[in-house]
Amino acid sequence: MRFDDSKPKTQNPKLRIAALAGGVGGAKLAHGLQAVLPPGALSVVVNTADDFKLWGLHISPDLDTVMYTLAGVANPQTGWGLAGDTWRALDMLTQYGRDPWFRVGDMDLATHVLRTQLRHEGRTLTEATANLASSLGVRSHLLPMCDEPVETLVETAEGTLNFQDYFVRRRHADTVTGVTFEGIDSARPTSAVSEALGEVAAIVFCPSNPIVSIGPILAVPGMLGLIERSRSVKVAVSPIVGGAALKGPAADMLHTLGHEVSPVGVASLYAGLLDGIVIDRVDAALAPRIEELGIRVEITDTIMNSDADRQALAETVLHFCGTLGAHIEMERAEV
Amino acid sequence: MRFDDSKPKTQNPKLRIAALAGGVGGAKLAHGLQAVLPPGALSVVVNTADDFKLWGLHISPDLDTVMYTLAGVANPQTGWGLAGDTWRALDMLTQYGRDPWFRVGDMDLATHVLRTQLRHEGRTLTEATANLASSLGVRSHLLPMCDEPVETLVETAEGTLNFQDYFVRRRHADTVTGVTFEGIDSARPTSAVSEALGEVAAIVFCPSNPIVSIGPILAVPGMLGLIERSRSVKVAVSPIVGGAALKGPAADMLHTLGHEVSPVGVASLYAGLLDGIVIDRVDAALAPRIEELGIRVEITDTIMNSDADRQALAETVLHFCGTLGAHIEMERAEV
Repeated sequence: MRFDDSKPKTQNPKLRIAALAGGVGGAKLAHGLQAVLPPGALSVVVNTADDFKLWGLHISPDLDTVMYTLAGVANPQTGWGLAGDTWRALDMLTQYGRDPWFRVGDMDLATHVLRTQLRHEGRTLTEATANLASSLGVRSHLLPMCDEPVETLVETAEGTLNFQDYFVRRRHADTVTGVTFEGIDSARPTSAVSEALGEVAAIVFCPSNPIVSIGPILAVPGMLGLIERSRSVKVAVSPIVGGAALKGPAADMLHTLGHEVSPVGVASLYAGLLDGIVIDRVDAALAPRIEELGIRVEITDTIMNSDADRQALAETVLHFCGTLGAHIEMERAEV
Repeated sequence: MRFDDSKPKTQNPKLRIAALAGGVGGAKLAHGLQAVLPPGALSVVVNTADDFKLWGLHISPDLDTVMYTLAGVANPQTGWGLAGDTWRALDMLTQYGRDPWFRVGDMDLATHVLRTQLRHEGRTLTEATANLASSLGVRSHLLPMCDEPVETLVETAEGTLNFQDYFVRRRHADTVTGVTFEGIDSARPTSAVSEALGEVAAIVFCPSNPIVSIGPILAVPGMLGLIERSRSVKVAVSPIVGGAALKGPAADMLHTLGHEVSPVGVASLYAGLLDGIVIDRVDAALAPRIEELGIRVEITDTIMNSDADRQALAETVLHFCGTLGAHIEMERAEV
């Protein structure tokens, strides 16, 4: 077993890229970045505040989505889970009287079983993730934002909900009036994350929910300092396109938490951190307002329906980083 | 969730039957007994010395075989595992670099996950077993022989092997020169087992391997005393028919450990405990030698190829117990 893959391989830091990502949207861009960068050049720092225990298993929804996507085995219909997965274990769990509200497939279950085993054996989440990802042939560095448990809690009219309860069980139908990250005060960026953010040409904020996906990553004490001190170019891709989120509750959440539901709102949330933001053509008219925040804007097609879309957006993002001063060497690898 | 099912329901003790069982052979007779007895009248005390950890999961092979068989969901081809199970999770575990030597099906995996969860939450194995079995609609009392961990170790020319290593991974090809039950000194019959054995009309030693299936049950300190003090009729069914075991390594094991490979050898191992033994017609000539041991003999067809065979053998066993003094009321229930 190889546990040493959590540490980025030594190579020219100017050629390395870090991405911050949550689930499906972030995974797609990370996949595009991986495809156009040399092997090992990409590190993806992933939100773990959605992690939870189910049937005694440690489930890391965002890590799994990014891992499956980078390994090329993700379910293309849902974006999460594994292509061609089946539901026999879940049917059996239902026979045992368990509520099958969280759709764990049979192959997916293997991931949760092994992660739980590795954790029980004393491996950190970073080590367990590296072990699983390297077995699946992922050639980027998949890094949990921290090794400490953090839990996103969502305030709603129905009370405080655990994130998966809100997001999956209740299908994000509740109005969100507040978000907290329980345990975040005890969390710290791992040494792998510190290294990944410290010596890179660019840090890419993927088009993930800024509140509950990128938000927890930035809320880890010490993370903002790492990003601010990094002499890299920092660029985001807006997850809001034409006033809506491509997937999930980001738009509703921005609205009820008092933010503008547009790339301007996203840019404002990241203001002070970003050098630039990539927005969709439909939002082109908003560019001047973002530039007023001191953030440069790149306008392109940001909706990723195919692998080609992912790579095209990744190339645009990296070229944009280049125009902002990053020295980046692309090398389209076989996907 | 119902955890109270581990305690036999209060009813006339004269109508209750306890069976001691290991895996497939024992499960078949237990299934026959369940079919011809009133609901709740049967308690099955099951070997747990084959239990082991795999991928961090608590696996109880004999409990599962008996549970699936009593629930009517066992794989009829193999005798173990679940009918119609699939192997997607195992394929994925293999992709993760794990050796798939122990064939856990997808539905079967759900059992191990839930047992492990219940154990981690502090439930005893007895409580966890009752929870799972009642969810599957098992209407007998499925009782682990003890709640403490016990591990069968097999001495071979290749050294000491864990039982599953010997039995499954190495396909019981090694010559067994000794068997020990690690941890047995700290084990005790559970209160459910004490009650099940204390107030019954009959105790049936199922046709399971006398060395490594019934052996560990009898080796739990206090178990022999419970059986000896029980004012029930005690009857065994020989797992050896015509000098061979119907399944598994019982014949080879009896031979290399110096026992006669026949119902006489089996009866000798249980001598002092049994009132009677049921042997197959092919072994009829051996009856006088067994009767010399003070054990009465019933001769019948003991090979169970169908549900009807299981019920016929169960009826013969119970009638035999009746002739030996047990008051038993049969009531063929729907299977």
